[in-house]
Amino acid sequence: MSAVSEEVLLLGPGPSPTSRSVQRAQARPLLGHLDPEFTPVLDRVQAGLRTLFGTRNALTLPLAGTGSSGMEAMVCNLVEPGDRVVVGVHGIFGRRFADAVRRAGADAVEVEVPFGAPLDPAAIVAAVQAAPTRLCVVVHAETSTGVLTDLRAIAAGVLETGALFGVDCVTSIAGVPLDFDEIGVDAAFCGTQKCLSVPPGLAPVTFSERAMERVRARTHPVPFYFDTTLLTGYFGAERSYHYTAPVSMVYALEAALDEIEAEGLEARFRRHRDVAAALRRGLALLGLEPLVAVEHATPMLTTVCYPDGVDDGTFRTHLRQRHRIEVGGGLGPLAGKVFRVGLMGHGARLENVSRAVAAFGDALSASGRSVDVDAALAAVHAR
Amino acid sequence: MSAVSEEVLLLGPGPSPTSRSVQRAQARPLLGHLDPEFTPVLDRVQAGLRTLFGTRNALTLPLAGTGSSGMEAMVCNLVEPGDRVVVGVHGIFGRRFADAVRRAGADAVEVEVPFGAPLDPAAIVAAVQAAPTRLCVVVHAETSTGVLTDLRAIAAGVLETGALFGVDCVTSIAGVPLDFDEIGVDAAFCGTQKCLSVPPGLAPVTFSERAMERVRARTHPVPFYFDTTLLTGYFGAERSYHYTAPVSMVYALEAALDEIEAEGLEARFRRHRDVAAALRRGLALLGLEPLVAVEHATPMLTTVCYPDGVDDGTFRTHLRQRHRIEVGGGLGPLAGKVFRVGLMGHGARLENVSRAVAAFGDALSASGRSVDVDAALAAVHAR
Repeated sequence: MSAVSEEVLLLGPGPSPTSRSVQRAQARPLLGHLDPEFTPVLDRVQAGLRTLFGTRNALTLPLAGTGSSGMEAMVCNLVEPGDRVVVGVHGIFGRRFADAVRRAGADAVEVEVPFGAPLDPAAIVAAVQAAPTRLCVVVHAETSTGVLTDLRAIAAGVLETGALFGVDCVTSIAGVPLDFDEIGVDAAFCGTQKCLSVPPGLAPVTFSERAMERVRARTHPVPFYFDTTLLTGYFGAERSYHYTAPVSMVYALEAALDEIEAEGLEARFRRHRDVAAALRRGLALLGLEPLVAVEHATPMLTTVCYPDGVDDGTFRTHLRQRHRIEVGGGLGPLAGKVFRVGLMGHGARLENVSRAVAAFGDALSASGRSVDVDAALAAVHAR
Repeated sequence: MSAVSEEVLLLGPGPSPTSRSVQRAQARPLLGHLDPEFTPVLDRVQAGLRTLFGTRNALTLPLAGTGSSGMEAMVCNLVEPGDRVVVGVHGIFGRRFADAVRRAGADAVEVEVPFGAPLDPAAIVAAVQAAPTRLCVVVHAETSTGVLTDLRAIAAGVLETGALFGVDCVTSIAGVPLDFDEIGVDAAFCGTQKCLSVPPGLAPVTFSERAMERVRARTHPVPFYFDTTLLTGYFGAERSYHYTAPVSMVYALEAALDEIEAEGLEARFRRHRDVAAALRRGLALLGLEPLVAVEHATPMLTTVCYPDGVDDGTFRTHLRQRHRIEVGGGLGPLAGKVFRVGLMGHGARLENVSRAVAAFGDALSASGRSVDVDAALAAVHAR
């Protein structure tokens, strides 16, 4: 086995740190995926996910795969060759969705804004209205920039046209409210390694009855792995065999959902908002500027611009080697210009903000900048 | 969290029991999927998988998904609409592959034998020779019947035609030798929950250079999730981001590969053969008949025919409730007629055979049959 060294504090774009309870759940001896003691775990996980998505959708379940497998499942089930799909693009995950749509033989219309800006709801709705559209998809919390999308401002205009409304909520789930039934979201996917604080490897998805009608009306088959009918056979009353469910990952998700329920959703959302605000106070005193204005920013991921003269590689290597802290680098056009700080799920704690701000100060000093770390730490704890 | 009760002995078709070392590995605090301390784990896992597959293929890696995602990856990368694919069918997993091929818009020619019989190499080669064929696929160890396929008898005839030769080795890997380079296998996929004794959730795959040439010559795109070019970017020297690798599952696989290396492949294969033989000796004394003749049987999975008057549901419920042992039921045309006993990886131990044989004897007695359990147990331990 690879050497086990001191723990790394995961404050990047994911995976986020997991709790002892989640770690212990993963290490439980296995049960069979059709065992009478295991199927109640599936029920409990499905119920917990419905609460987080804010939905009563029957098809709400964790796919066996990373968050990207959830994206693939949405494309495979809801998009057919020749379909028109409008994709809001304000970072690399919107672009990735458009790429997946084109690979499926459909037409992807990208409604783009510069990385760091919020999506333009009017432009997206106008693009959907411009021609018959099967699906409109937006990324809720764009992990490459830290911009949150106003879903309500887009949903009504999209749904009026008859198009389905899909959401990538990989980074937002369990960190901000989703309320998908109320908003009118037809399909959504996420991952477990962000604010759920479960290791990567599962993709919770939810499909509305309207989305399932679309699936049933398809003329092209869905790949076996992502077939929602087969998935429903296993996750429904039948418990028919589809594939061997990733038992230990499901245990881990169950443990995380228990922790979330014990904390309470409102308290959890508030915790994410509070630590994000504390981080911004600390950054300001260090002379570091967030990329995204606070009114459009995600609480769980803050993208920070490098001041002139600070090198990305040097800065992040210093954090990782000297402080055993992981933060993320910039992606796409932001590569080298920003770093990304995730305060997600189990990692969204004030003590982690302090440790990060102290380490950022030290790394800036090492880059020859003069900073007042004590003042920044005091700001973190100020209310 | 769901109540933790006494452990269930997993002697079904998978998942198999995991060792404490694998369980502990899963519970390790996470590292980032691009962390400099994590990428050596990927290298080590890839090297260990190459040893098990018996290959030097560069593209040898664990996909994030169950064994079925490996099947999907083979279809998505190697099959294009209109292609002709010959599939050996001697159980439900061959049928499933043919289904996946048709969903991809290709023509699946099934060369079938009755469930429980071995594939007919001459018939498969003849089917491949009959018309230009892109890919010929067989299941190595058919999990629904326990029949092992003679890959060498098929490979040469297939490769002569220019077709690619693909193998489903979900159940065989780490339980019998694979020697894929020597045999001439172009692509293979498996799962981790059988003889590797890692929880379900990863699909190790390997593609030969010949297979990769086919991928590069495609005219239809591959879905994002299964794109071997993107996968190679992450698993290769670049370490470019594709998706967030399932870190804790990879730790578990690393721990299992360490255990396999420590045991030695030959010793491991012998252990699987020895416990299978012990099981057969015990079954004979209980009056239970294996479905498959020993010369065609897989060591890791033995399918057992019910004697007249023994009800499948009653028998397996008795094992599960009274003895906390899981065995598998029959699938497809064998449903209700057989049960399946897996002695896989960490579960392939003589003490598990004894416990199983004693429990089978008790369940038969409960069904009103007269059996001599002591004689059966003595036979298990006889050499």
